[in-house]
Amino acid sequence: MPLTDRNQPVTETLADAIRRTIDTKTKPLGALGRIETLAEQIALLQGTTAPVMQACTLTIFAADHGIAHAGVSAFPQVVTGQMMLNFLGGGAAANVFARVNDVALQVVDAGVAGEPIAHPALVSRRIGPGTANFLDAPAMSPDEARTALGHGAEVARAASGEALAFGEMGIANTATAAALAHKLTGLPLADLVGRGTGLDDAGLRHKLDVLTRAAARTGALTPEQAMAEYGGFEIVMMAGAMLETARASRVVMVDGFIATAAALLATRLEPESRRAMVFCHKSHEAGHRALLAALDADPLLELDMRLGEGTGALLAWPLLKAAAAMMTDMASFEAAGVTNRD
Amino acid sequence: MPLTDRNQPVTETLADAIRRTIDTKTKPLGALGRIETLAEQIALLQGTTAPVMQACTLTIFAADHGIAHAGVSAFPQVVTGQMMLNFLGGGAAANVFARVNDVALQVVDAGVAGEPIAHPALVSRRIGPGTANFLDAPAMSPDEARTALGHGAEVARAASGEALAFGEMGIANTATAAALAHKLTGLPLADLVGRGTGLDDAGLRHKLDVLTRAAARTGALTPEQAMAEYGGFEIVMMAGAMLETARASRVVMVDGFIATAAALLATRLEPESRRAMVFCHKSHEAGHRALLAALDADPLLELDMRLGEGTGALLAWPLLKAAAAMMTDMASFEAAGVTNRD
Repeated sequence: MPLTDRNQPVTETLADAIRRTIDTKTKPLGALGRIETLAEQIALLQGTTAPVMQACTLTIFAADHGIAHAGVSAFPQVVTGQMMLNFLGGGAAANVFARVNDVALQVVDAGVAGEPIAHPALVSRRIGPGTANFLDAPAMSPDEARTALGHGAEVARAASGEALAFGEMGIANTATAAALAHKLTGLPLADLVGRGTGLDDAGLRHKLDVLTRAAARTGALTPEQAMAEYGGFEIVMMAGAMLETARASRVVMVDGFIATAAALLATRLEPESRRAMVFCHKSHEAGHRALLAALDADPLLELDMRLGEGTGALLAWPLLKAAAAMMTDMASFEAAGVTNRD
Repeated sequence: MPLTDRNQPVTETLADAIRRTIDTKTKPLGALGRIETLAEQIALLQGTTAPVMQACTLTIFAADHGIAHAGVSAFPQVVTGQMMLNFLGGGAAANVFARVNDVALQVVDAGVAGEPIAHPALVSRRIGPGTANFLDAPAMSPDEARTALGHGAEVARAASGEALAFGEMGIANTATAAALAHKLTGLPLADLVGRGTGLDDAGLRHKLDVLTRAAARTGALTPEQAMAEYGGFEIVMMAGAMLETARASRVVMVDGFIATAAALLATRLEPESRRAMVFCHKSHEAGHRALLAALDADPLLELDMRLGEGTGALLAWPLLKAAAAMMTDMASFEAAGVTNRD
């Protein structure tokens, strides 16, 4: 590519050098497929042909949702706080996968219903005891939404690692994510609504009906308005964390449906954050495909999971390490004395 | 399931217990998707609800192929031995991924062309300096094929880990794998032939033409006959290793196209070996899909890779660890005090 754009000569040169580094490794051209494109993305983000990918922290944001009172989830709201304690006790799927893949894990109370839980390891960033029911009123005030973004940024700044993964827990938050994504993209709610933790057909119809009525409460919204009207404390806080991670040129590991809704919000607030995002797992939740298409994203893994908690990101973390190590540790044809094709 | 079959009461009970263990973990039913089915397979194979998946060894079998002299590869034959040295030097993609995911790696010379390479870390199980060109004659004798199976079994017995992964290196071995699979399954060669390390359209047409002529040399064959007529030393040895791994109720991690051809041969020799096999990566090599369908296999990963060397298996290893740890380390609803849905 000729270096005609005077604003980007360094980036152009770097991209070429990264591609050349990959293409001279001892393998047929392109034979490592998505590991190569992942390595390119990481190297470009870090601004080097020798990227480092050593440590990762998963932050799980937990919060409750007023829309749960409209009967849109298969589980009762009390489960959000119970699962937060399960994370703190080390017994959830996210804890198990984090230990297996050597990822640090922290839990943030972004606004779980009821009395605050006291636990030495819990990061308390409560905006309130759950959002309001957005069927009748804005989920939160514009001030609360801005505060959530700021808390997310602070939490991300304090987390260590070349990549940060984000997970969530919040009963009814697939409903929140669908409503928020609908307002951000204009995609039909029917394409965004799914079974969540396990709704049956009647439950799914009810959820779509509730969200259709809730969406009709407002017209076209800016991203700032949408996140207050239909957001969740954990979703907005996660978007703030993603934005800060991207600003620091660290990799943003995006998990499933809810996290992708947060990533969508982040890109609508700051489009340049997209380059830092690695989409980790294509969820079984129906609406995820539509959101991924809106973000032009093709996740690394597709394991039919639909749990959230950052579980998909945790399972993808070894792929990021492998991609970076390929750049730095794999021999070139020349160094290894291997004959390349003519 | 009622225990009416008196031949299988223990297995039935164990399968039920495994499913119950998974279903009482703190997650919605089925929410971990393929991690759950993988955990079921591992637990059944080990005969316990508390499976262990701690260590893995990758064995790379290298050999040369007489069919290379018919011009069916984009790389010259000398590359097989050069890459074997690259594995021994730690510079290949397989070495890098093995280090990242903490997998032990050993390299077996199953029959590389030219003088034997002397290296203290190389496991020498040479059947000969490459196979004969199966365009004109059997690739190897029935005795050589049996010896290769036996060497593979010995190598597998000596490798440590609850799971063993197998990789290969051999210029022209996609041609060998296609011919062998064609004879084992009767699938059209056109469905099994691909670009290997990077053939262009003319090269691909030539490869198909060569294999069509080679296949016409014989009629219907037993698996034993097919492995001698059209096998490769590394492919038959890998099949022997897979069989021995399965007999020991250890997980057989199957990599891409070549390894799947070896797995196919193994299942045709001993059908019960199939239960031990975990298919790790859906290769970009065209013929892989047809082979996977023949084995009713759906690999865990699909990363557009087409390198071999066991790279796909290495990247899938953390998923096996996660699946087993889910069984043993994740809390149940009862233990964690989390409310299950009604």
